[in-house]
Amino acid sequence: MTDKGLFITFEGPEGAGKTTVIKELYDRLKSDGRKVILTREPGGVPIAEKIRHIILDNTHQEMDAKTEALLYAAARRQHLVEIVIPALNEDTIVLCDRFIDSSLAYQGYARGLGIEEVLSINQFAIGDTMPDLTLFFDIKPEDGLARISNNSGREQNRLDNESINFHKKVYEGYQLLIERFPNRIHTTDASQSKDIVKENVWEIMSKFI
Amino acid sequence: MTDKGLFITFEGPEGAGKTTVIKELYDRLKSDGRKVILTREPGGVPIAEKIRHIILDNTHQEMDAKTEALLYAAARRQHLVEIVIPALNEDTIVLCDRFIDSSLAYQGYARGLGIEEVLSINQFAIGDTMPDLTLFFDIKPEDGLARISNNSGREQNRLDNESINFHKKVYEGYQLLIERFPNRIHTTDASQSKDIVKENVWEIMSKFI
Repeated sequence: MTDKGLFITFEGPEGAGKTTVIKELYDRLKSDGRKVILTREPGGVPIAEKIRHIILDNTHQEMDAKTEALLYAAARRQHLVEIVIPALNEDTIVLCDRFIDSSLAYQGYARGLGIEEVLSINQFAIGDTMPDLTLFFDIKPEDGLARISNNSGREQNRLDNESINFHKKVYEGYQLLIERFPNRIHTTDASQSKDIVKENVWEIMSKFI
Repeated sequence: MTDKGLFITFEGPEGAGKTTVIKELYDRLKSDGRKVILTREPGGVPIAEKIRHIILDNTHQEMDAKTEALLYAAARRQHLVEIVIPALNEDTIVLCDRFIDSSLAYQGYARGLGIEEVLSINQFAIGDTMPDLTLFFDIKPEDGLARISNNSGREQNRLDNESINFHKKVYEGYQLLIERFPNRIHTTDASQSKDIVKENVWEIMSKFI
């Protein structure tokens, strides 16, 4: 838990609708007069954007899973130091699209590196700046991917080459994290309409703000 | 220790003369009919070269020390998987200019991240592929830096902006590593002439080959 500000992260499979909902929650907090920022991982600052570019480059088929995990942790660190920590120190609500749990689910569990091992390098990266609250957007991987394939404007990246089995493992990984961090991670049924999801998330967030 | 091949790394302060000596040792092993490769860190393969570029970019003054340590570990992993491990599996002698001890001395000790912490993320990166032998080129940081400043053809990078105190701490860090890994790390007096250093290193290496 941070002393100042409030650090809220959003997690879930591809196509869970996180990005749209977070934007509207951000607008609502803003219009309520809250100090709030909206950011995303990996990226957000020049060094992290360059790291993101290496990670997602479609030509990097030879990238080792541990290299990938270390690059995500490096981008996370830089983004944290430049964006998240300064905002929290100014008593700001930080909404972050993906954070440590993505690495634990994708690299730790789905790629088989081990949740504990990936947690360890991420603890090095983030120190004690764990999220105060994490919202998991719960949608079956098949349904999330179906939504994405209907969205032709979406940018393609290296992760889009992964099989449905990989995305099912990511989902299983998230289930393990929900069991492991029951106080931090709250779940919302993301198969419902966007407005209902938004209201559910708002209700959970309101208890923390 | 690796079952096959032989993994030899070379360490030391800036300007210790490693690069020149390693090249001549490589040529000598080659002309003796040995299977040998010469490689360096960070870099050696496209993904690692791109990471190296981010690390050494002179404009990245905002880079956090932990980001830097994670990027070195990521580049190390990719270089290991693509170059070092395949060569060792083919019973080849691998000569590598800098490896894990550079991270421990520079980031772990000189930047104050902690040798244990940086060792931990590097153990994630390299698994059990520790060097069989490490040659430390022992030169006082002042003397090494004086050599570099006389070499106008050398490429400048972000580390060249560090103070003499930083380089003294790097040297102290190496001394701690020599105490900690006495069986693996062997020291050669690098203040002597290049030919004497080369013979000394050859003698140490010969016991392992």
